[in-house]
Amino acid sequence: MLKPESYAAGRWIAPGETATTVIGPVSGEPIAVAGGAAIDMQEMLDYARDTGGPALRAMTFHERAKMLKALAAYLDGRKEELYALNPLTGATRRDGAIDIDGGIGTMFVFASKGRREMPDGHVYIDGDVEQLSRKGTFLGQHIAVPLQGVAVHINAFNFPVWGMLEKLAPTLLAGVPAIVKPATQTSYLTEACFRMMIESGLLPDGAAQLIVGRTGDLLDRLGAQDVVSFTGSADTANMLRSNPNLLRNSTRFLAEQDSLNAAILGPDAAPDSPEFARFIKEATTEVTAKAGQKCTAMRRLIVPAEQLDNVAKALSEKLGNTVLGDPAAKETRMGALASLDQKADVLNRLETLAAETRLICGGPDALSDNLSTGAYLPPTLLACDDPDSATAVHEVEAFGPVTTLMPYRDLPHAAQLANRGGGSLVSSLFTNDPGVARDVTLASAAWHGRIYIVGRASADEATGHGSPLPHMVHGGPGRAGGGEELGGVRGVLHYMQRTAIQGSPDMISAITGTWIKGSAETTGPQHPFQRAFNEIAIGETIHTDPRTVTLDDIEHFAHFTGDTFYAHMDEEAAKANPFFPGRVAHGYLLLSFAAGLFVQPDPGPVLANTGLNGLSFQKPVSPGDAIKVRLTCKRKTKRTDTYGEVAWNVTLTNQDDEQVAEYELLTMVSYDR
Amino acid sequence: MLKPESYAAGRWIAPGETATTVIGPVSGEPIAVAGGAAIDMQEMLDYARDTGGPALRAMTFHERAKMLKALAAYLDGRKEELYALNPLTGATRRDGAIDIDGGIGTMFVFASKGRREMPDGHVYIDGDVEQLSRKGTFLGQHIAVPLQGVAVHINAFNFPVWGMLEKLAPTLLAGVPAIVKPATQTSYLTEACFRMMIESGLLPDGAAQLIVGRTGDLLDRLGAQDVVSFTGSADTANMLRSNPNLLRNSTRFLAEQDSLNAAILGPDAAPDSPEFARFIKEATTEVTAKAGQKCTAMRRLIVPAEQLDNVAKALSEKLGNTVLGDPAAKETRMGALASLDQKADVLNRLETLAAETRLICGGPDALSDNLSTGAYLPPTLLACDDPDSATAVHEVEAFGPVTTLMPYRDLPHAAQLANRGGGSLVSSLFTNDPGVARDVTLASAAWHGRIYIVGRASADEATGHGSPLPHMVHGGPGRAGGGEELGGVRGVLHYMQRTAIQGSPDMISAITGTWIKGSAETTGPQHPFQRAFNEIAIGETIHTDPRTVTLDDIEHFAHFTGDTFYAHMDEEAAKANPFFPGRVAHGYLLLSFAAGLFVQPDPGPVLANTGLNGLSFQKPVSPGDAIKVRLTCKRKTKRTDTYGEVAWNVTLTNQDDEQVAEYELLTMVSYDR
Repeated sequence: MLKPESYAAGRWIAPGETATTVIGPVSGEPIAVAGGAAIDMQEMLDYARDTGGPALRAMTFHERAKMLKALAAYLDGRKEELYALNPLTGATRRDGAIDIDGGIGTMFVFASKGRREMPDGHVYIDGDVEQLSRKGTFLGQHIAVPLQGVAVHINAFNFPVWGMLEKLAPTLLAGVPAIVKPATQTSYLTEACFRMMIESGLLPDGAAQLIVGRTGDLLDRLGAQDVVSFTGSADTANMLRSNPNLLRNSTRFLAEQDSLNAAILGPDAAPDSPEFARFIKEATTEVTAKAGQKCTAMRRLIVPAEQLDNVAKALSEKLGNTVLGDPAAKETRMGALASLDQKADVLNRLETLAAETRLICGGPDALSDNLSTGAYLPPTLLACDDPDSATAVHEVEAFGPVTTLMPYRDLPHAAQLANRGGGSLVSSLFTNDPGVARDVTLASAAWHGRIYIVGRASADEATGHGSPLPHMVHGGPGRAGGGEELGGVRGVLHYMQRTAIQGSPDMISAITGTWIKGSAETTGPQHPFQRAFNEIAIGETIHTDPRTVTLDDIEHFAHFTGDTFYAHMDEEAAKANPFFPGRVAHGYLLLSFAAGLFVQPDPGPVLANTGLNGLSFQKPVSPGDAIKVRLTCKRKTKRTDTYGEVAWNVTLTNQDDEQVAEYELLTMVSYDR
Repeated sequence: MLKPESYAAGRWIAPGETATTVIGPVSGEPIAVAGGAAIDMQEMLDYARDTGGPALRAMTFHERAKMLKALAAYLDGRKEELYALNPLTGATRRDGAIDIDGGIGTMFVFASKGRREMPDGHVYIDGDVEQLSRKGTFLGQHIAVPLQGVAVHINAFNFPVWGMLEKLAPTLLAGVPAIVKPATQTSYLTEACFRMMIESGLLPDGAAQLIVGRTGDLLDRLGAQDVVSFTGSADTANMLRSNPNLLRNSTRFLAEQDSLNAAILGPDAAPDSPEFARFIKEATTEVTAKAGQKCTAMRRLIVPAEQLDNVAKALSEKLGNTVLGDPAAKETRMGALASLDQKADVLNRLETLAAETRLICGGPDALSDNLSTGAYLPPTLLACDDPDSATAVHEVEAFGPVTTLMPYRDLPHAAQLANRGGGSLVSSLFTNDPGVARDVTLASAAWHGRIYIVGRASADEATGHGSPLPHMVHGGPGRAGGGEELGGVRGVLHYMQRTAIQGSPDMISAITGTWIKGSAETTGPQHPFQRAFNEIAIGETIHTDPRTVTLDDIEHFAHFTGDTFYAHMDEEAAKANPFFPGRVAHGYLLLSFAAGLFVQPDPGPVLANTGLNGLSFQKPVSPGDAIKVRLTCKRKTKRTDTYGEVAWNVTLTNQDDEQVAEYELLTMVSYDR
């Protein structure tokens, strides 16, 4: 008998007297006891807020990203222990890969995004500096900082590992401690993974805690700096988000609810097309993977009216061939539902759907006798011939291996049917026609958190309708909960506060650790190209001598490079151009001369110019004008063990001190001289 | 007697039998009757969703931005009619400027941001393309599209014009119709402004409707595509957001609640410092402007313990000199509260605060007899000597000319006290020390939607603690409502759905109207530099001949430009560099040669190269390598009446077809050949 434990305020707590007995969906026999222990919720919250939060916030985004990478690698090394438990949940090894490898992979992606897209500091910069004043002495900058509370993660039974890790990764990267509450039915698998994380020793004390069983009055104790992130049914979400304490404190509540996701077969996808074949293949996967117990599973297959019979035939053939049985057996393609209760719930909903649909294949009566003690249900395909007047097919979800086929007349009708779900996590479209993709997207994107489009061009690499990826947001409006997770840094920001900062350039620079136009310029003891990464100070500046640009220079450059654009070569034609007073210097000539002015040529810590951002040519430079350069260290980011990126703000001004060009120059600079 | 009307489904509706009588706060006499008419809420919603929404969505972001600009200009031309009504609300002309000119100015800023920061199309692109596959045939892109429902704006009594316009501007720019519900007390001024907008003829039918009076069962009829945006008290917000229908449908609810905003006087701000003087000046403004009836007003003045008496003295002197009286009179610096009820409410809360504070100046007893019939209250300063054990001063808001002074020991204590408000719209800091700014911000940003920092460097241009600006987000966590408004495009996105799009490059390109690497390249009949803005197609491409880069070229370029960096000049030293195999070509040489390869030199529609984005040098180019260029039209944006911006994706490849550099080239292209 498995006995998953809670982990509260640094202590493991075994199941208590009122523990729940978990019945295995495969055997129909008890496999675990879970929950039922007395846990002091306030102590957990205090431990997270007073110990975990400060420890995480003391780390930079890069330090937290490195921690996630190490954690993911640690779990990857021990994942077979998790795969050993996986069949107990009713899931096959393939199902387990979505959960276990999927969860670890998500953590790796957040580790990588944290390093590449967030700073090695404590403040995330959101967007550009806002010019709030004429002279530039008063500016605006949006930043994001970690919330000072705790994230409560309430997870669903279907992804015991992925469900925990996909929420934990962005939360920890944000710098916020978490309390994880898995569904009791599969809590032993979540606990096994959670225990590994604690055993890794990689997490600061208080960064993560676990509640197996009931959460008691936890939600009644949350406040303005806390976040609840929920995955599960619409009914439970509604109950939780109605908690008066959460409402009164404006506590953030993110919900990701199973929804009536649609898949549209494009009008161009004839039965012999790659798109038709792909549709059948993905629909089969969506019905059978995890026995259809995925929040993102296709519940409604919306096909051209004239294709309905073809699809029904092709799909029922595939579904009929699915080998159902013991999830631990190699030949099994589909295992059991997560519990007998879950199966009963699905059968209940199938009865409701029966009034509006006809059965194409599957259903409880098709189950072979030898599987009747487990929570098995054959893949079940329904058809609804009048989806306009039907309501249950758009509203009632059988959370199992069940989907409903329905016909559409034209594209607007298809989009309208997809939108009838009242908001979904994902809607997909099988087409080879970009015009169809555009029309369907414009008509329906507002109702769906994700639109997955697949055709022959992307078929080999497309990741599947049902797979949320850490790069893309996961969540949807209305029925899908109105929440959002993942989506790279977007998912991290849900655990942070966006704050508008207003002040002088020096104040904003001190807060963001980035030089801003107008903030102090300093001078180093040598040319900055002779200084190591750590020696160069934010704001360190050089001003060069001027160089006069002659007509000869322009002529020479034009013939050398081949850029004989008339604005540089023909006085009359250049004058007729609204931008130029006559012949002007090439922009690239200015860039090149600028480098000639600011570069220190000797070997030194500055290794390479790797790029340039936001170059803008602001004023033409005429023959006889003299340009000079200001180069200021703007931002520094460690990249490898031996060098980091230094970004410089560069301006070119003319003899009248008018700015003629500006850009951000990127260099790699060694840590050593 | 004023009789403000509702505007529902294209018809004006006069006050009904059960109309409310509005008592003027200056005279104490009835000035208006409002509301009480039977309005069909479902008809209003249908009109917005079926007529207003489709009309707005048919326009591009730029078309809607132009509409906002015209609307703002129209209102600006008629604003004296609004100023004529303004004193009836109790507000002085200066107060009215915040409301009337502030509202019109906000609309102008959104018009401008819509043109500069959003596309001239129907889909807003959120972030970069995500590489979801190795070969690049399957990509991700986040987009945002207008919600297909209606925005219900529930506004507060204190800003009858700004309150409407600051919500309407981002909503209309998003492409979403609005139903505006002003507070009844000042609804006649909102109605006058709203009527002008209808009379302007600039808004499509159904884009904006007005409810003067009660909203009946409006909220019970909202769904997944609707948004409620509320400004007002925490109690009302809590009641509205608890509506079961809103919760069940995950209807977006944005709340901006008055909060216990703090102002911290820095430890460096001695009595003779500019920061001290500024603190006294801004605190005086915050207490007296709009008679303190601003959601953002400073309610808690947190000062160094040793400065408490100095601040009390300086501030009470200023406040005591405030001329209170008829808001229409020129010499008046502070008018009346918005209503007699409002005054009663403030007096009530003053009694609660009395238990924890002492009165420094003002209070009801200080009111001169001749003002006793109106809703007047003198500027009132309290002091709380033990703010750690006090609770009411951090929680109970007297929404009038009232503020409380409290002492702090050190900076962490100051931040802690500021955070005791439980979440606020704005917290300010008066300091000349960037280190103080950084410490206070890191300790408290998570609790405040905006942090306003002012010192001598920004004093001349700083816009004031209490002024939300359209560029910066307005809203805050917890007690402030957990919502967010304004902040430029951020505020527009609250009325849009963010959707993750996954598909092949061609699919994503068709949806966003932007060329993406991997999507189709086409060839035009002439060189693209000879084609007018409208002739150039997205995806139109040229491939140039190769050019070999010689060692002579590198030598020549180095001496011509002065850029003799060792990586170009010294074989041995270059080899020692981790990035280079030996001497390599200058990046700027490659850029310049690339231009020489792709430029068509004759006069034509391409007017100028105005800049460059995201240049990255990816592989070194050695002497003898041959580079060639691909130039593809990526994005087009109309800028003026005669030309627009065309952005090109440019890649440089070597003789082995390895990419050596990539960038986005910006050009201005004439609409005519």
